[in-house]
Amino acid sequence: MVENLTLYTAKTCPYAHRVELVLNEADAEFTRYEVDLKNKPEWYAPKVNPASKVPAIAYGGPKVSPDKPAPESKKIAESLVLLEFISDLYPSVSLLPKEPVLRAKARFFIDTVSTKFNPAYFSYVIRGDGSLDNLLKAFEAIQALLPPAGGFAVGEWSIADAALIPFVARMFVALKNDLGAYPVGEGPKLLETILGSSSLQRFQKYWSEASAKPSFTATFDEQYITAVYKKRFGDIERKAKI
Amino acid sequence: MVENLTLYTAKTCPYAHRVELVLNEADAEFTRYEVDLKNKPEWYAPKVNPASKVPAIAYGGPKVSPDKPAPESKKIAESLVLLEFISDLYPSVSLLPKEPVLRAKARFFIDTVSTKFNPAYFSYVIRGDGSLDNLLKAFEAIQALLPPAGGFAVGEWSIADAALIPFVARMFVALKNDLGAYPVGEGPKLLETILGSSSLQRFQKYWSEASAKPSFTATFDEQYITAVYKKRFGDIERKAKI
Repeated sequence: MVENLTLYTAKTCPYAHRVELVLNEADAEFTRYEVDLKNKPEWYAPKVNPASKVPAIAYGGPKVSPDKPAPESKKIAESLVLLEFISDLYPSVSLLPKEPVLRAKARFFIDTVSTKFNPAYFSYVIRGDGSLDNLLKAFEAIQALLPPAGGFAVGEWSIADAALIPFVARMFVALKNDLGAYPVGEGPKLLETILGSSSLQRFQKYWSEASAKPSFTATFDEQYITAVYKKRFGDIERKAKI
Repeated sequence: MVENLTLYTAKTCPYAHRVELVLNEADAEFTRYEVDLKNKPEWYAPKVNPASKVPAIAYGGPKVSPDKPAPESKKIAESLVLLEFISDLYPSVSLLPKEPVLRAKARFFIDTVSTKFNPAYFSYVIRGDGSLDNLLKAFEAIQALLPPAGGFAVGEWSIADAALIPFVARMFVALKNDLGAYPVGEGPKLLETILGSSSLQRFQKYWSEASAKPSFTATFDEQYITAVYKKRFGDIERKAKI
């Protein structure tokens, strides 16, 4: 039996969004606590996550108010650990296939997100020290792992898709609104390349299916993220329009 | 039923050693192929691992000579993906506990190895650009995750221990022989601190138990690694003895 579960999360955070996606897919009953990342409650680090980051889960123990975490509950952190945890908690939902080779394929996909896709995204869009070419190659690397005939990362939707989609969604909000640390004016052009180029057709089909899933639309608030990004990226120094 | 399994590995490589440890613990039947990392066979990247790294596994398909990998076998790479894969292949061996919270604990331990322990090790010992203090803190972080009363990372030996031990073993060979990029003369002193300091007693007990396991002694060739390291680190420029 699944025990009391509280998710400490934040709407802007892609790592936390990963966990919200799988909890939604599992139709899990849980308490959601929005952590104000700019002003974290003083009890959060000592009582929930010493690293003071979201996401974190308090699992088990008595039913308590989320701002008074019980010492009896287990505190679990790190988004990828939590994806596997939810998948283990709800084996009947099949958030990971049962077959060992497919499970390995899902985990290799996640590894590619962590070691190729996200570094290229953060570097070009967030820090402005990366190459556009590298970012496009990262999309191609993801695309190359997708089953050619259709479907999600390993066929059925899985934690592999949950690991990627929150980052793509946030990148697209940034590009659409020309927000980020890349040269002024490049955002919408790049978005058009990613969503229009014939060399990324398989990825485009994947994104259109992944972003249409009810678990995604229920957990992604584009308007809210756009407003936060306008504030966050509005003042950074950028290279001139090229 | 487990199918044909070929491991592409290299005795010096700690990532590959992780996988050898779990295969040994599982008492798995497999073909071991030693890849010469300085002179990789030309078929290795195109037919086994496009990233051209070890470890990799060819799983399934017909029984073939490892230097003629069959197109029918599935090729799987990345050491942490492989640890989970072996654990999924041999569920009865319990390379990961069954209980979701303990599984999460094992994966959090592995995350700490990847994001704290190894970066501190590589930085201080291998590249010579890190701080000793940081490395000692990494040992303390690992120690803090160990069950206080004894046992391995999550009680019974698991893939969490397999993720860490190959790196500790190689670091200790380097320190013992004063090999690495840190200041000359510091290696043996640091080893004495790690293995003698009263603040690391819980880690010391862990290391003495982990390194005494038959799966470890059967897969770690200290003499061979020492000889390789003498060659590798012998010529690097180092700071003077301090």
